[in-house]
Amino acid sequence: MKQVEIITIGDELLIGQVVDTNSAYMAAELNKWGYEVLCVTSVHDNAQQIQEALAVAEKRADVVLLTGGLGPTKDDITKHTLCRYFGTTLTYRQDIREHLERLYANRHDVLNRLTDTQCLFPANAMLIANQVGSAQVMCWQRAACTVISMPGVPYEMMWCMEHGVGELLRSLSADAGQIIHRTVQVYGIPESSLALLIGGWEDALPAQMRLAYLPKDGIIRLRLSGYGVTAGQMDAQIQQLLAILDAQTTDRLPSPADKGLAFATEDLPVEVLLGRVLKQRGQTIASAESCTGGKIAERLNRHAGSSAFYYGSVVAYDNSVKEHVLHVPAEDLAQYGAVSEPVVRQMAEGVRTLLHTDYAVATSGIAGPDGGTADKPVGTVWIALATPEGTYAHCFHLGKLRDQITDRAATVALVWMWKMLS
Amino acid sequence: MKQVEIITIGDELLIGQVVDTNSAYMAAELNKWGYEVLCVTSVHDNAQQIQEALAVAEKRADVVLLTGGLGPTKDDITKHTLCRYFGTTLTYRQDIREHLERLYANRHDVLNRLTDTQCLFPANAMLIANQVGSAQVMCWQRAACTVISMPGVPYEMMWCMEHGVGELLRSLSADAGQIIHRTVQVYGIPESSLALLIGGWEDALPAQMRLAYLPKDGIIRLRLSGYGVTAGQMDAQIQQLLAILDAQTTDRLPSPADKGLAFATEDLPVEVLLGRVLKQRGQTIASAESCTGGKIAERLNRHAGSSAFYYGSVVAYDNSVKEHVLHVPAEDLAQYGAVSEPVVRQMAEGVRTLLHTDYAVATSGIAGPDGGTADKPVGTVWIALATPEGTYAHCFHLGKLRDQITDRAATVALVWMWKMLS
Repeated sequence: MKQVEIITIGDELLIGQVVDTNSAYMAAELNKWGYEVLCVTSVHDNAQQIQEALAVAEKRADVVLLTGGLGPTKDDITKHTLCRYFGTTLTYRQDIREHLERLYANRHDVLNRLTDTQCLFPANAMLIANQVGSAQVMCWQRAACTVISMPGVPYEMMWCMEHGVGELLRSLSADAGQIIHRTVQVYGIPESSLALLIGGWEDALPAQMRLAYLPKDGIIRLRLSGYGVTAGQMDAQIQQLLAILDAQTTDRLPSPADKGLAFATEDLPVEVLLGRVLKQRGQTIASAESCTGGKIAERLNRHAGSSAFYYGSVVAYDNSVKEHVLHVPAEDLAQYGAVSEPVVRQMAEGVRTLLHTDYAVATSGIAGPDGGTADKPVGTVWIALATPEGTYAHCFHLGKLRDQITDRAATVALVWMWKMLS
Repeated sequence: MKQVEIITIGDELLIGQVVDTNSAYMAAELNKWGYEVLCVTSVHDNAQQIQEALAVAEKRADVVLLTGGLGPTKDDITKHTLCRYFGTTLTYRQDIREHLERLYANRHDVLNRLTDTQCLFPANAMLIANQVGSAQVMCWQRAACTVISMPGVPYEMMWCMEHGVGELLRSLSADAGQIIHRTVQVYGIPESSLALLIGGWEDALPAQMRLAYLPKDGIIRLRLSGYGVTAGQMDAQIQQLLAILDAQTTDRLPSPADKGLAFATEDLPVEVLLGRVLKQRGQTIASAESCTGGKIAERLNRHAGSSAFYYGSVVAYDNSVKEHVLHVPAEDLAQYGAVSEPVVRQMAEGVRTLLHTDYAVATSGIAGPDGGTADKPVGTVWIALATPEGTYAHCFHLGKLRDQITDRAATVALVWMWKMLS
């Protein structure tokens, strides 16, 4: 198994202005290609820190991947630092100039003297093309270690990983074993109860396999990682796990309060699982959202291909929208309040009728920080599903923090709908 | 200036299954309290790696913050590892047991023997309470270094930072100088042109101040960081910067193609800036979204207090919704296509009329990966603003990748609306 260290460079990562999403993306790709990521280190745009981190990583790993600090502005120093580290100087490359001219013409823009500095490239480095941005990838091979420096702009880094960097890394790891991950998502059971349920199976796992629990928003992802094992050995273990889980499922739907659990054998967002079932059935869905404010809509159409099953949504944040667009009677809003069973049922039915879909989900809740009462504290969320067979509604208590409540409400609604259809 | 190292623990971070958002949050808080974050290291749930990273960090930093690996399941080993590292053993704490019983009663759940293991706590560690979760914070002070181990669940970690951990850290740094960051957001100019425009000012900055450029989705955040300087010194520099930017602004709105730039002096998302202006004016907004699919809605109501200016949205993904809910004529959809000026104008006007708001934004574009033509390639997005003074529409070309296109479209629409009102 080849080993990689990732170094992400940028003050913004260390003052909390930007979340490092690059290393997660790289790690997932690297695992597929047979690399284990030993550790990720984030350092400042500081020559000494970059060099120190690189020196440590170069000793431990077969490959060191750096991202960030390759922009044309003064705060970006990675290229100069690497030149000193590898004892070389910059030369002007006409091939980069030609690439930049094409790139800027496409953007209806022209090069200026600052962007022109991107044509300077370390004399002893190998160039790996970045066709979607101005900073080119630098690669050095020294002793047993390959050092690759990529831009930090996520979509540029991804493009490079998908193209030249990925090709190189796959060729370097041709003989290595693979790390295989299998994830089973489980809904409807607390983490510790699940751990007790499957504890016997977990204890009997072979030494090269490790199990991890990743709970979030009421979903527990069980990840089994196998090091140097075959896909068949992994699948055999997963089948045992699924048999244990299967014995716990029931058909007591459509109540979401049902204690029976549900599970999925792919590590895909629930909206993708739901979309797939809808597509197979040739059916459609819409949402009527108060507290989730568009989160369900955004998740349903985030992934390509959603037009096959997703028509649209009404975000009914203000009561006037619930009344005039979704036709929730004003007297119900007055009598029961917006966060109530009658209102959420009529929201779901209203959007289903309005948009002519097979299914509809609706949410109405108190996301806080204000608006909670003794009766309906912050975190109270009514969710309804309107279906050809009738409408179902349930009240959930989803936490105390605004984001947590609305994220969970969107997830719960999507999981409930998916459980009902699958 | 006191120095911190952050160590985030979890296999999920190193195989790309979870993005580490914790360290960014912690870093931002730490800066406010006068701490500089030297580096962030992510390691596996592996005793040797945790100990090695901790040993290095303990030597370099005044404070080491660890997150993750404190769950009750077998994959979580941080507590046991720290016991060995600090030469101690676990003892059963009745005070933790009482806390857990209260916590589980609130969740309508009971303790089982696995969750009961959370009552075991290192004998020589100081306990800092985590009232929103089961894993308690462990703190050791040894030589000149304070080591604090927090849960990895983001909202639990945040709660601890806001309460006991924050209190301790603020007391430890009472005498330290502060790191001050000021951010100016600039819209409507490429990064390299901006760098040339303000290059003279940047070169004249004092040595204790550093400037960084953070471009994303057409917004460039200029961050000025001051180490051991006063707020007055920072403000004086920012005023000079604003004067340079101000000379470049024009009043040629409402065309978004306007080359004049706009800027904001706070590091807040544009939807917060827009919401604030709307609130001041007592005006309201809605959105009609095709390709952005709810992203504008979700951003407008993500932040507490949005009910003052945000009424709702129609996500009109399918043409039937554009026609029947927003009253875009079928003949216009047929003649011009959904991604066209007449359609996007009528979407904006349709939702403004339907929801009785002062303003409305609408989007219709080709987010890909399919659906592009020579005439309207992937990335083509029409955006319209309906206002009391009339409706404005403009065609943008926003890249090649689905997420990038829809994120940028949402940002462009919000920026354009904000520029018009501010």
